[in-house]
Amino acid sequence: MLVLSNEEIGKLLTIEECMKALEPMYHDVAAERVLFSPRVDSIGPHSLQGAYYAFKHMGGTWPREKIQALRINSDVVTHPLVAGKPRRVKQPLAPSSTGGRWVGLVLLFNTETGALMAMFPDGVMQNLRVGATSGLGLRHLSREDSKVLALIGSGWQAVTQLSAALAVRKFSEVRVYSPRRETREAFIAEQRKIHGTDIRAVDSADAAADGADVIAAATSSMVRVLEPRWLKPGVHISCIKTQEVDPEVLNRCDRVIFSNRRQSKHIDHVMQGTPNVQSESSKGWWNDGSIKMDRFADVADVLAGQAKGRQSPKEITCFMNNVGTGLQFAAAGAYVLKKARAQRVGTELPDDWFCEDVHP
Amino acid sequence: MLVLSNEEIGKLLTIEECMKALEPMYHDVAAERVLFSPRVDSIGPHSLQGAYYAFKHMGGTWPREKIQALRINSDVVTHPLVAGKPRRVKQPLAPSSTGGRWVGLVLLFNTETGALMAMFPDGVMQNLRVGATSGLGLRHLSREDSKVLALIGSGWQAVTQLSAALAVRKFSEVRVYSPRRETREAFIAEQRKIHGTDIRAVDSADAAADGADVIAAATSSMVRVLEPRWLKPGVHISCIKTQEVDPEVLNRCDRVIFSNRRQSKHIDHVMQGTPNVQSESSKGWWNDGSIKMDRFADVADVLAGQAKGRQSPKEITCFMNNVGTGLQFAAAGAYVLKKARAQRVGTELPDDWFCEDVHP
Repeated sequence: MLVLSNEEIGKLLTIEECMKALEPMYHDVAAERVLFSPRVDSIGPHSLQGAYYAFKHMGGTWPREKIQALRINSDVVTHPLVAGKPRRVKQPLAPSSTGGRWVGLVLLFNTETGALMAMFPDGVMQNLRVGATSGLGLRHLSREDSKVLALIGSGWQAVTQLSAALAVRKFSEVRVYSPRRETREAFIAEQRKIHGTDIRAVDSADAAADGADVIAAATSSMVRVLEPRWLKPGVHISCIKTQEVDPEVLNRCDRVIFSNRRQSKHIDHVMQGTPNVQSESSKGWWNDGSIKMDRFADVADVLAGQAKGRQSPKEITCFMNNVGTGLQFAAAGAYVLKKARAQRVGTELPDDWFCEDVHP
Repeated sequence: MLVLSNEEIGKLLTIEECMKALEPMYHDVAAERVLFSPRVDSIGPHSLQGAYYAFKHMGGTWPREKIQALRINSDVVTHPLVAGKPRRVKQPLAPSSTGGRWVGLVLLFNTETGALMAMFPDGVMQNLRVGATSGLGLRHLSREDSKVLALIGSGWQAVTQLSAALAVRKFSEVRVYSPRRETREAFIAEQRKIHGTDIRAVDSADAAADGADVIAAATSSMVRVLEPRWLKPGVHISCIKTQEVDPEVLNRCDRVIFSNRRQSKHIDHVMQGTPNVQSESSKGWWNDGSIKMDRFADVADVLAGQAKGRQSPKEITCFMNNVGTGLQFAAAGAYVLKKARAQRVGTELPDDWFCEDVHP
């Protein structure tokens, strides 16, 4: 049983590799040769004021690679106001040698033997598969001649949104806006070291979005961050969280593609009555009757040629990373595991600890 | 993060301790101070003829002990005919130092910090919590003067069904029937070493049941094993698998208590078209309109005094261990973990491997 660290996974998996690893899985999603297991969210009490315990898991079976993934998150969640807007913030409270940490784990099983093959923290892979999925959407939905990228958000999700966008299109300019100046300046300093592109901070979301070919939101906002007035012909918008858009935004788009139409996220009840989340945000667009879900296709169907990507330079398109799936971890995990074994990376623990001679 | 073995758990948890550990959890179930997470069954293909891959997980949040449990099973399942009847048999195919093994794991999380506290194989605890739950049912449903116990089945589940029954009632005679003589003789030889009671093998299920005060099924049968003709006034019957009874049996009972009415098992589709399972067994009593589920109470409600146990010596009672829950592992796990820490049992792995400084 192989234990991998986030650092090791970061070295084994680039954003390009992650896109390549996810693509055949999405083809199998379109062909219905995969199994989703429902995402389960359990919300329990916590002693901290305004906090709740959130236990989440999502599984995925990918027969092509004979792999079963289960991703588990054990979080203490709060909804503080940041720059006047509520955010979903996970509190790092698990003890470690370096202080409080978060708890997210991926377990990979072999479907032929049943064996637990690997276990690792989910953070780096989670981040890469969100970015890679948005990248696949961008490839099929943004204009090929896109030059200006607006990035709303400068946190950890923004890192892979940026690298995925740069891997897919030749942007000559990237404008970054997030409400806290220090955070966005630090982000830009870091990203300039990695990418050769002109990356600059701007003082407002409007300044970022004005004239941009692609507007990518990468936030933890509980309320809308993409504005309808930005939706000019030819623009592509990208979300990593359902709350980043609302019916007004979606109704202006000519084409909306979901990362996963086959599975939805049912956490509305969690939001109701939660501190700092206004009642209007708990009535999300997914409850809005004016939104016709039927006109939204699944990225799997687009990749497999069963649904259409962008059809003209004038279309306003939207890619919605609406819900994560265990299958993304199965696909990225299968790739990382093969590479880790070939390169002898990671810590091997005795298999005997993770199986049994007693009938379960 | 503490890794425990089945052997260590067997030393830390007796059947009596397991009953004591489960009881306060059931009180909290009755008071709705727990969270069930839905049991998820994913059934995938397997290269072996007649086999399928079954990935199952069940979670449970128990706020009283600030614990979250997740039990995971990664099985290769077949339905061979044994003595002419189909059984559900898990194939031990996971590699280990001692040959093929099964894969079942329990993960315990701290709901205050999120941390993964422990991980262990599920076999010994799974067996004890099934026995302990049946024991709690037996305590409230069987006649106090019960003397003769009939045990149908002599496999691993029969071991804890027997020890639980002997912990609850002073049986003077135990009759064991199972279709394979060698298996039941070996079982009896082993159990006689442990218990002081008169334990004997009989040649037919009828011979076991005739005049018994309690008839306990402990089988992996996919078809009925408890016969309606055995249901004389005052008898208590006990099942560990829904298929062990059918509507004819349940309709003759005056009182039926479920281990968990709040959660049901939806695996009918798995059975349809599976080799060796006749179509009549896939139409279980749970699909039968003649069964009024409303008259079945939950063992949690009985323990909490919100539903009635046996009301007269004449009643025919039934306890149905209908579905396992993650909460049973949360309760037994919380107990075992405390004791293991106090006695310094188990293998400690670095906490740092199972948490992260990257936002998940």
